Amino acid sequence: MKKNEVSILGAGLIGSLLSIYLKKRGMDVHVYEKRADNRAGAYKEEGRSINMALSDRGWRALEKAGLREKVLPLTIPMYGRQVHNEHGATTFIPYGKEGQAIYSISRGRFNQLLMNEAEIEGVNIHFESKIEDVDLRTNELHIRDKEGQQEKVGSEVILGADGAYSSLRTAMLKQVRFNYKQEYISHGYKELSIPPTEKGEFAMDPNALHIWPRGSFMLIALPNPDKSFTCTLFLPFEGERVSFENIRDEHDVEGVFQTYFDDAYQKMPNLVSEYFNNPTASLINIECYPWMINKSLLIGDASHAMVPFYGQGMNSGFEDCLILDNLIEKLGANAWELVFAKFQKSRKPNTDAICRLAMENFEEMKADVADPKFLIRKRIEARLHELYPNDWIPLYTMVTFSTMSYSEAYTIGKLQQNIMDGVMSNPLITQNWDKLDYADIIDRLDKAKAV
Amino acid sequence: MKKNEVSILGAGLIGSLLSIYLKKRGMDVHVYEKRADNRAGAYKEEGRSINMALSDRGWRALEKAGLREKVLPLTIPMYGRQVHNEHGATTFIPYGKEGQAIYSISRGRFNQLLMNEAEIEGVNIHFESKIEDVDLRTNELHIRDKEGQQEKVGSEVILGADGAYSSLRTAMLKQVRFNYKQEYISHGYKELSIPPTEKGEFAMDPNALHIWPRGSFMLIALPNPDKSFTCTLFLPFEGERVSFENIRDEHDVEGVFQTYFDDAYQKMPNLVSEYFNNPTASLINIECYPWMINKSLLIGDASHAMVPFYGQGMNSGFEDCLILDNLIEKLGANAWELVFAKFQKSRKPNTDAICRLAMENFEEMKADVADPKFLIRKRIEARLHELYPNDWIPLYTMVTFSTMSYSEAYTIGKLQQNIMDGVMSNPLITQNWDKLDYADIIDRLDKAKAV
Repeated sequence: MKKNEVSILGAGLIGSLLSIYLKKRGMDVHVYEKRADNRAGAYKEEGRSINMALSDRGWRALEKAGLREKVLPLTIPMYGRQVHNEHGATTFIPYGKEGQAIYSISRGRFNQLLMNEAEIEGVNIHFESKIEDVDLRTNELHIRDKEGQQEKVGSEVILGADGAYSSLRTAMLKQVRFNYKQEYISHGYKELSIPPTEKGEFAMDPNALHIWPRGSFMLIALPNPDKSFTCTLFLPFEGERVSFENIRDEHDVEGVFQTYFDDAYQKMPNLVSEYFNNPTASLINIECYPWMINKSLLIGDASHAMVPFYGQGMNSGFEDCLILDNLIEKLGANAWELVFAKFQKSRKPNTDAICRLAMENFEEMKADVADPKFLIRKRIEARLHELYPNDWIPLYTMVTFSTMSYSEAYTIGKLQQNIMDGVMSNPLITQNWDKLDYADIIDRLDKAKAV
Repeated sequence: MKKNEVSILGAGLIGSLLSIYLKKRGMDVHVYEKRADNRAGAYKEEGRSINMALSDRGWRALEKAGLREKVLPLTIPMYGRQVHNEHGATTFIPYGKEGQAIYSISRGRFNQLLMNEAEIEGVNIHFESKIEDVDLRTNELHIRDKEGQQEKVGSEVILGADGAYSSLRTAMLKQVRFNYKQEYISHGYKELSIPPTEKGEFAMDPNALHIWPRGSFMLIALPNPDKSFTCTLFLPFEGERVSFENIRDEHDVEGVFQTYFDDAYQKMPNLVSEYFNNPTASLINIECYPWMINKSLLIGDASHAMVPFYGQGMNSGFEDCLILDNLIEKLGANAWELVFAKFQKSRKPNTDAICRLAMENFEEMKADVADPKFLIRKRIEARLHELYPNDWIPLYTMVTFSTMSYSEAYTIGKLQQNIMDGVMSNPLITQNWDKLDYADIIDRLDKAKAV
């Protein structure tokens, strides 16, 4: 039987980047991917992707792999949220300080680039290879290839980068004392698009993440280099006035869009066909522990799939790869079990924190960003950060524009939230916000941190 | 292909009782059980059972099936907890009012009785039939029989009473939007025993649940009709001074028992061999939703496995059967999907509540029951219940000696807990407890309930 040094399950974003790291360390790396190679011929997106937003953690991981310059041309910087109200008026809320941005990128194109880079490094990607079972005792993969033949492949280590529906995790689930949670939220999503204008230009400001928050549902749009926008509609599956269940025909789709998203609707000539041709996808949160059994390890979505509302799914997965590679660097390439044990122990509290934040940010995105008080709150926090750049860092900035651990960001974020709730409870805050005693707010935070 | 009207997975306590209910309604009922029939020949317990404690909910369900009188001779009433301290001194804490008891019963014997009764009714139990897969689209079971032959069996409905490691639930887990959580606690357990004395008598009071609470671990013992006690040792798997990991040999076992459980140790001649021959089992909490897909339904542990610390695992499963049968009675035997939908919707908040209570009671059992203040707290609550029998019902009584819904018991229990925390914070409570203004406490509860 063939025996690989390293087998990676999944040639998605995380599996591909991970394969590059390990190949650069001189290992024999094989990646097994159940889909066919989509790089040749006409490229067709699956119609169920949400554009990715690369932020600091992701960039740092790409940098260590020497990929920053190659990825940059695929991206478009977004400096803030452009909030659209029901009358089409917009308000711009910066994500951070001037020049700070998150970078829109298409999952499909990005994945193709990473697979190309992996193959250039010498990684073997085996497409159309379905993992039917993983024997955790012997570290053997049972693989069904495109001809329908089953093959067993041994591995020194197995890394499961095979996403929310991970085969490796399914095998681990049957082991004793494996803790596991999968939770679907009440909302689903559908991909739509805004094409370029007739003159071939972007139909809206390309340097923002556009958002139409409507309380129990919302629409977002992220720019693409071809001057289109990829839109994502988030609706409850059932119940509510506006839900996937209640949109049955062309008439319903147009009614909802004209009523709630009219300015977007005017820019969406393919709305109805896209609505009915693209699938309605669900959103899952997954937490589990341990991530390792013997010499196999879960990584990325396989160990911590999160809802997409903080834009950190891919970024946290890339950070996983970076941290794992740093541990291999430090402890040596033969100490797999020690590396895995240290990795899961240090990383788990952080991925728990970002999973929770992603869930909480859904409420903020669909409701609060439309609230005038939310804008003031953001302004006060921006001012605090400007005056005391090291003492008050808004939560979004800690998560997105720093590489501070997610759990530390979460803890400090909660302290800041309590203080800001107090500040915002002042009934005159709308008028007085710029006359606040900012030094006193910083004092309060310092005291809270000391407890 | 053969098609059953009703297929039940699992001939355990829940599956057997459920089969009796449905057979009594005139249905064609087939039960598939992966174990062999253990009723013939020498009966051997598996060495990993915790004795069951039947309480009001369980009795009510048995009563409707006409089984109360048949089960009673297998049971021994336990009127309270007999708490053993490290010096062998004991304190008795009644479970309820005089005459109220929970009933110790051996899982194995009880299961045999229910299987016998099911067969007398005309239920077909197929032993050594392993469910390898369930096709939820066609409601087909893929069964591997004892000869190793695979058979496909169609069913009008499938009821998964196949416990914490349910095959039906495994099939459901792959369906979209199935929410699932499995959580192992840090403690495991091991079955031990206290045999009858040389004179053939019980070695301790048979009408109590004996408990040796030691903070981070504990031992319990429940009586059997053969005058032995089935003991269960609960220890952390790892870490701590006393854990399964740290007990390596005969010397360690005896050291731990002599130090912490000396009065029990004197009565356990087979301790060392039992300790090393019986497996160390783990404890899992499972919550999931939905419980139904099309015409298949999870019931009992398959949908809500809980830790054993409230003695409600079997009782809640029997109550599931009763509630399901009541819905069939009301809505008719052909309205399966409606019955299942109503069942899961009304039952889920209640099983969530008892799962949570079971987890919380672990803390109480291993720590608080050894605290003198705990005893006073129990006495105050008993007095309140005596003075105001309808206004203050201790949580344990609501769960164990009533058929009030678990979620209502949980909510009222939390209100009472807050009030009792206030009462117990009085530094002189140890001296003054019987001079409290009990009417005022009831007033406070009424106000809290009104909010």
